[in-house]
Amino acid sequence: MTAAVFTVEATDGAARAGTVTTPRGTFSTPCFMPVGTRGAVPHLDSSDLEVLGVEVVLANTYHLMLRPGAETVSRLGGIHGFAQWHGHILTDSGGYQIYSLDPEVDDDGASFKSVYDGSACRLTPEEAVHLQALIGADMTMVLDVCPSAVAERPVLAEAVRRTALWARRGRDAFLAHPDAPQRQCQFGIVQGGADASLRLESAQRTLEAGFDGYAVGGLSVGEDRPAMLDALDACMVPLPADRPRYFMGLGDPAGIAEAVARGVDMFDCVLPARLGRHGTVLSDTGRYNLAAARHASSDEPLDPSFPDSPAGRWSRGYLRHLLATHEPTAARLITLHNLAWVLRFMDRVRARERSEQVREALRPSL
Amino acid sequence: MTAAVFTVEATDGAARAGTVTTPRGTFSTPCFMPVGTRGAVPHLDSSDLEVLGVEVVLANTYHLMLRPGAETVSRLGGIHGFAQWHGHILTDSGGYQIYSLDPEVDDDGASFKSVYDGSACRLTPEEAVHLQALIGADMTMVLDVCPSAVAERPVLAEAVRRTALWARRGRDAFLAHPDAPQRQCQFGIVQGGADASLRLESAQRTLEAGFDGYAVGGLSVGEDRPAMLDALDACMVPLPADRPRYFMGLGDPAGIAEAVARGVDMFDCVLPARLGRHGTVLSDTGRYNLAAARHASSDEPLDPSFPDSPAGRWSRGYLRHLLATHEPTAARLITLHNLAWVLRFMDRVRARERSEQVREALRPSL
Repeated sequence: MTAAVFTVEATDGAARAGTVTTPRGTFSTPCFMPVGTRGAVPHLDSSDLEVLGVEVVLANTYHLMLRPGAETVSRLGGIHGFAQWHGHILTDSGGYQIYSLDPEVDDDGASFKSVYDGSACRLTPEEAVHLQALIGADMTMVLDVCPSAVAERPVLAEAVRRTALWARRGRDAFLAHPDAPQRQCQFGIVQGGADASLRLESAQRTLEAGFDGYAVGGLSVGEDRPAMLDALDACMVPLPADRPRYFMGLGDPAGIAEAVARGVDMFDCVLPARLGRHGTVLSDTGRYNLAAARHASSDEPLDPSFPDSPAGRWSRGYLRHLLATHEPTAARLITLHNLAWVLRFMDRVRARERSEQVREALRPSL
Repeated sequence: MTAAVFTVEATDGAARAGTVTTPRGTFSTPCFMPVGTRGAVPHLDSSDLEVLGVEVVLANTYHLMLRPGAETVSRLGGIHGFAQWHGHILTDSGGYQIYSLDPEVDDDGASFKSVYDGSACRLTPEEAVHLQALIGADMTMVLDVCPSAVAERPVLAEAVRRTALWARRGRDAFLAHPDAPQRQCQFGIVQGGADASLRLESAQRTLEAGFDGYAVGGLSVGEDRPAMLDALDACMVPLPADRPRYFMGLGDPAGIAEAVARGVDMFDCVLPARLGRHGTVLSDTGRYNLAAARHASSDEPLDPSFPDSPAGRWSRGYLRHLLATHEPTAARLITLHNLAWVLRFMDRVRARERSEQVREALRPSL
């Protein structure tokens, strides 16, 4: 009983290109999922995502449970009807957000305060399943314990233990749900900080609960790149080849290329959109700050090697002017450009036989 | 020698439907011009305006001369190349903006401070022509003196005198410009506050300078509606039927309908977009505040009688959620809706034989 079928179509070392098929349809991997935390990618709507060719969008259970509430999302057609987005949606469980709020955690669940009004909230593995069933994403995440990247080993070990406990309970709740298993799939999450042995243990214990896909959480949160890749390597060993693998929160092209080479299939990150909102442009010759004075009179487009960019119609000089005068049109157009750039990067990653070649070809921009 | 031909195609009392033809092409009147002060309507780009069917956009000389500078706009292709907008553009001269900055005015010109960095600036009738020639709009405005709506009669009379002086100098500078008369047209501006006799005098003196079109400035700035209409009536008497008439800064549907009935052809206002950014929705049953709690679970579109609204795909519940969580997507979608609503309102005004019928039909929303 799984609502997701993962088909590997090509491999190269550990890297693979494939598809994930759910009751909603099929999307290609490796894929990048833009983040619409509250049900919209900032400055964009679902018709923009269609034009960009986005296949999967991420939304956030923690935010949606607080505003407008999972019941309201359900009443307005679930997240697909609510946002009028007919592609795939993945909802994060809220574990990552909660741990930025200094929660009180026990074996049963986590208590924390609403970021909107300070009211007391509680999330358990069962409640995370219930809320995500109401929200109605195609892919859901189990509730996990996501400690600080610089936590001491005992803290990481306790997080791994509790994450495994919650994985079991979350999986049971999902399978016992009256309709979720027929229309949703569920991913487990591997924790363990930058500790390779804890990562291996967490992967094994998550695997025992038997999910439709497996995510690596709690990385790319400030640790250095070699430490991140060592921890990722340790996770990957036990994870089965016939299930999609998802690296949570990784969005820089260099990191994506490294992770694809290690067998990761799915990525999400606020980075390309956040950079765009603040005027940092992704391009084949490297990222740059459009606010710099040297762009003020430039009639070049944002990335001359990307003529099909959704912002390719306008000059750097015009877009910099809008950015400098705080016109929201700038944030929108650079967000569109950056997301299109990352999606094209993923196309190139999928098209290349060896992701090493992609890294080589794109070295200036990584 | 005029770069604009106004053709009246139908009249009904003082109201008329027609076209304005410039070297750029032809647009229909009565028309509503969205305001892109700094070269973009907030949250929108030129492709959005194309989809909306906008024919004329307004930009602002005062803002563009300060950021990015008229020379930079010129270097980047003029305002049409800069914004990549190939429809008509009208630039306001900056008179209205300057008078909100408590300027020092003498017969020669106005000295004021930059809203961006406080630096000293000066604008004269000749400089306003020069700057607008660099910016390159199809329709330009003469520099005027725009006093407070509640100014005493001597202040208004002095503004009328100086506006007439500047009209003559602005017109001379325009006609002496090496290429402006071939590619731009120029509108004079009638002042006089809410004083009917000063309005008549100002219209006559503006007319003596001989412009391609005539604007009514300094109204719809806080005076009551009967006073506004009396002042408008006084202006209209001497203005020739064969030139377009432009009511500056009027954007509410009721006011537009009244002014069309008196023979006005062109309108601009930030109102529909500004209302949209702040969550006020225009609809056939009246404007409403989408932030109200009653819309939180509504699956209705913003205006059920406007199924082709660019925001018609989403429910009030979804858009209210984005508004309440400060997602900029809400500002964009409601801006698009409101502008589309006003443009459709202008279509209806043009299509009706009598604007009284429009007022009657749209009474609930006026």
